[in-house]
Amino acid sequence: MEIRLASKIGFCYGVERAYEKALELAKKNKNVYIYGDLVHNNSVKDELVSKNINFFYSLNDLPENSKEAICIIRAHGIPKKDKNFLKNNFKSVVDLTCPIVEKVFNYAYNMQKKGFFIVAYGKKDHAEMIGLKGNIDEKKIEILKNAKSFKYNKLCIITQTTMDYNNFKDFASQIAKLSEYNELVVKDTICYETKIREKEAKDIAIWSEFVIIIGGKHSSNTRKLYEISKKYNNNSIHIDSVKELLYIDFSRIKKIGILTGTSTPNKSIKEVIEFLRRGF
Amino acid sequence: MEIRLASKIGFCYGVERAYEKALELAKKNKNVYIYGDLVHNNSVKDELVSKNINFFYSLNDLPENSKEAICIIRAHGIPKKDKNFLKNNFKSVVDLTCPIVEKVFNYAYNMQKKGFFIVAYGKKDHAEMIGLKGNIDEKKIEILKNAKSFKYNKLCIITQTTMDYNNFKDFASQIAKLSEYNELVVKDTICYETKIREKEAKDIAIWSEFVIIIGGKHSSNTRKLYEISKKYNNNSIHIDSVKELLYIDFSRIKKIGILTGTSTPNKSIKEVIEFLRRGF
Repeated sequence: MEIRLASKIGFCYGVERAYEKALELAKKNKNVYIYGDLVHNNSVKDELVSKNINFFYSLNDLPENSKEAICIIRAHGIPKKDKNFLKNNFKSVVDLTCPIVEKVFNYAYNMQKKGFFIVAYGKKDHAEMIGLKGNIDEKKIEILKNAKSFKYNKLCIITQTTMDYNNFKDFASQIAKLSEYNELVVKDTICYETKIREKEAKDIAIWSEFVIIIGGKHSSNTRKLYEISKKYNNNSIHIDSVKELLYIDFSRIKKIGILTGTSTPNKSIKEVIEFLRRGF
Repeated sequence: MEIRLASKIGFCYGVERAYEKALELAKKNKNVYIYGDLVHNNSVKDELVSKNINFFYSLNDLPENSKEAICIIRAHGIPKKDKNFLKNNFKSVVDLTCPIVEKVFNYAYNMQKKGFFIVAYGKKDHAEMIGLKGNIDEKKIEILKNAKSFKYNKLCIITQTTMDYNNFKDFASQIAKLSEYNELVVKDTICYETKIREKEAKDIAIWSEFVIIIGGKHSSNTRKLYEISKKYNNNSIHIDSVKELLYIDFSRIKKIGILTGTSTPNKSIKEVIEFLRRGF
């Protein structure tokens, strides 16, 4: 059996950075909290909890000992005012917003300063989009997934870092047609890792007889890889853990592809590969 | 009979400026030449010739006395190398390129310097587009009327100053969809006069029972006003001179609209109005 593993596997750069830093902080400090999930993956969460990292999910529900604790801001980023609130309520705040996401926040901020109204192609309730809105003038941005008509002298279209490039272009193209403007800037702010992973998903799905997509069931980027794979290869399966493979018959399969989301820990990937190698 | 005259009539700003300056130069100087037609209008040409202004149409066919003559560059602009050639062959060169057109040349030049490939929505063989191409790096621009796919990191779409805004947006929208890029800038470089005249053409055509469009038969902007008017009012006529109205029966018409191209001299407009007022 031949196993083809995507070249970009496990955590993406921003998540890896936040994950390593969180563990490092927990080694040296007692009270470490992460605001929200670091990634949408239960085994990662369990591991962090086992290493004395705590989680809280609402600013209305701060840990009682917050004044003696360190608060970590996860890779997705948060609104400025929330960050200030955390700074006022924790001993210290460590901002681990992904630098690629931060770059998008700064780009949008600078374009607003140049007079542009921002249209972001994304999911309104996604943490990154909430973070984006809360880091710039929220009266001069609209976040949406379906194109509509705008009327601004200067209009700038950006995208959530995890969206699909072709869908983004369709969205931008429709706005270019529907809207009235003097200047329109379309800036592709999709994370390069997202692009590489999606391109590979297609290539691997075409090559494979069977594709295993490893990652949390709530992880939207893992789900997207699964959808891409499914499109090109009907024998695609999205699993959270190796256990889900136990009753599948791999005896006749010669080419297996493996894809993983940006929130999938290396441990889960190793387990799957070892299982496949051992089995046949 | 009510006559409604468009508010923007006669020469546009850039043509008026070139026309006045040419007459001024001809008053003080003997040998004044214009390279190409100042405007696409025979009566204007005849008038200029009667005031001792000469024309030539090819760099291979320079006036014999060029070294003692002044050469005028018309409002459309010309390539840099042609301008240099004229400078080397005439006593002096007076560049009367329309400042609005010049602004587009400069904008494209600066965008190229920032690394953008330029796509210009326009007619390849229109003087303004030849001028544009010849004022910037011509390897980094493509001029076309129908959208196609491009693959550049930075792509900038501009337009000939006399094109239609909605058509331009359709063109840009299609390129946004078909192409691959990281950053796309769509800059509306249509002259404001063009826009106002076209908007008025529609309004006046709807209001009128009969519309007279005055302007040279070769003037593309006049022809466009005629097309717009015709779309909203079947009783539209494009005339070059008042003579063409002599055999039309206006006796039952109560509302007449008048539109003029940017190359139409005030004299032609006056003649038509006087004819209509006198007749009924």
